[in-house]
Amino acid sequence: MEVGSDSTMIRPTFQEIQDAYERISTIVHWTPVLRNRNLNRLLGKDLYFKCENFQKCGAFKFRGATNVVMNLSDEELSRGVATHSSGNHAGALAAIAEIRDIRATVVMPENASRVKVNAVREYGAEIRFCASNTLARETCLEGVLKETGAVFVPPYNDYRIIAGQATVMLEFIEQVGGLDTVVAPVGGGGLLSGTARACAFQSPETSVIGAEPKGADDAMRSFTAKRLIPMVSPVTIADGLLTSLGEKTFPIILSQVDGIITVKEDSIIHAMRLVWERLKIIVEPSAAVPLAAILENPQSVPGSKVGIILSGGNVDLNHLPWKC
Amino acid sequence: MEVGSDSTMIRPTFQEIQDAYERISTIVHWTPVLRNRNLNRLLGKDLYFKCENFQKCGAFKFRGATNVVMNLSDEELSRGVATHSSGNHAGALAAIAEIRDIRATVVMPENASRVKVNAVREYGAEIRFCASNTLARETCLEGVLKETGAVFVPPYNDYRIIAGQATVMLEFIEQVGGLDTVVAPVGGGGLLSGTARACAFQSPETSVIGAEPKGADDAMRSFTAKRLIPMVSPVTIADGLLTSLGEKTFPIILSQVDGIITVKEDSIIHAMRLVWERLKIIVEPSAAVPLAAILENPQSVPGSKVGIILSGGNVDLNHLPWKC
Repeated sequence: MEVGSDSTMIRPTFQEIQDAYERISTIVHWTPVLRNRNLNRLLGKDLYFKCENFQKCGAFKFRGATNVVMNLSDEELSRGVATHSSGNHAGALAAIAEIRDIRATVVMPENASRVKVNAVREYGAEIRFCASNTLARETCLEGVLKETGAVFVPPYNDYRIIAGQATVMLEFIEQVGGLDTVVAPVGGGGLLSGTARACAFQSPETSVIGAEPKGADDAMRSFTAKRLIPMVSPVTIADGLLTSLGEKTFPIILSQVDGIITVKEDSIIHAMRLVWERLKIIVEPSAAVPLAAILENPQSVPGSKVGIILSGGNVDLNHLPWKC
Repeated sequence: MEVGSDSTMIRPTFQEIQDAYERISTIVHWTPVLRNRNLNRLLGKDLYFKCENFQKCGAFKFRGATNVVMNLSDEELSRGVATHSSGNHAGALAAIAEIRDIRATVVMPENASRVKVNAVREYGAEIRFCASNTLARETCLEGVLKETGAVFVPPYNDYRIIAGQATVMLEFIEQVGGLDTVVAPVGGGGLLSGTARACAFQSPETSVIGAEPKGADDAMRSFTAKRLIPMVSPVTIADGLLTSLGEKTFPIILSQVDGIITVKEDSIIHAMRLVWERLKIIVEPSAAVPLAAILENPQSVPGSKVGIILSGGNVDLNHLPWKC
């Protein structure tokens, strides 16, 4: 058997991540890194916040979707793209489809957040609503693919998507150098697995930690059991983290991530408010989960120089998770 | 009479503004400028947002207060500083006093925003509460000055304060070059007069416009009548703009500002939400007033390349001006 053959090589490879970055770098925003003296004082760490809430469409998801769409053939582009997503991946695919001037169809659950539905609509994508369960979603998407011939762009369980999300960490390392630890939220695992792959190549001494709500803790369960245990009925205000790990993201996380921390809903809200009040930026609940993990478990986060990936900023301002 | 003697020279001079910048530049944040394609599309302008909500203490006020405190003698520093303010100037003075390790006493009205009171307290300043009217405030401050011997650091009606606030515009011009127009909010007039002075020297072709709430429109009335007409009972959610122009800020505004636009409360809330949703940053109502002016009166804002000064980001997240 050849060394480095497909069966032994972990993907995405560094080449795939570098290619992704080259492919998308003129389209995605180079997002800023923020620091805050008061938060550092409060948490006893030297924190670096990578602001993907300032990414196009307000979330890191634009990177993965762009990496796939920018690599489609003319024939594929002519067929358009489709996906299922309740949130930021839908907006991201709609946005890059608008930029490429191709057709996009998005299957969304009826109960998707109004703000995220409006974003998809604003970018000119077609929306098909379905019941809020996996079967309904898959059946509806299959219908769309059959009907339109569109290319399916998966939300996370895809090496091209993972390579795109990995570019967040490539940039982050370029901006701040080596970190003791980086903490990323984990839902389907595209961002976390990409972060781990980028660190493996560019900053192998950095500990990579995933953070997820206790009410959607399939990553913790799967990581502990060493087998994929999908979530049945997740409940959390972190609406970007409802999905379960996939069979491509899970093995990367199992082999390359140093730990998973789960957090309470109260901590997510507290962390979200801290970011709003101290950094003066809007992040969605999912993006606050890593800071919540440090608030709850500072001792589980090794070292002092700690990076946090603020994954997105799409919030329905009429439904904030506190009284106002 | 000498050319350039005090009686004919408008203050602050360019030298005073440059000195202020040199004095404060290692202490204040160099704040970023943001742009947004969607907002540009919506408003038909090429907008540049100068983010003083990211300034230390969350508002431009830190610049003026720092300029005064960094120029005090050792004898003055030993006496400590004092001021009256319902909001951001109080926090700013408390913060620079903490940095210089000197005593600060702040007179605040009983009804001051909880968030702003907490900020002052966190920086270690002493707070004296008084009734919410000018007489009570001045009497209380006089008592403090007599009792402590502290140096009074005025909130806006002072050339050192105006020179400090002018550094926002110095930076802004350095970052984005010449603008057709810049719009700043106007309350006591420190920021607007400073902006006008900086433009007079560094970008004389830029139109300078002040924006204020219709419910606190003393700048518009004074500008039109060409005499200072203080506001009696201002009512607006823009709590940073309740104060009236002073006898130092008004003449600068009258002679060097191109226009004043007044806006409705609804427009302020709409503009504030637009900034939160599109730029993903937290701004307080006062900071949204310039964008509200462009939303209401795009034709009153000359040219296409328009700068907006986002003056601050200190908001009580439990009392947002919309349902949630």
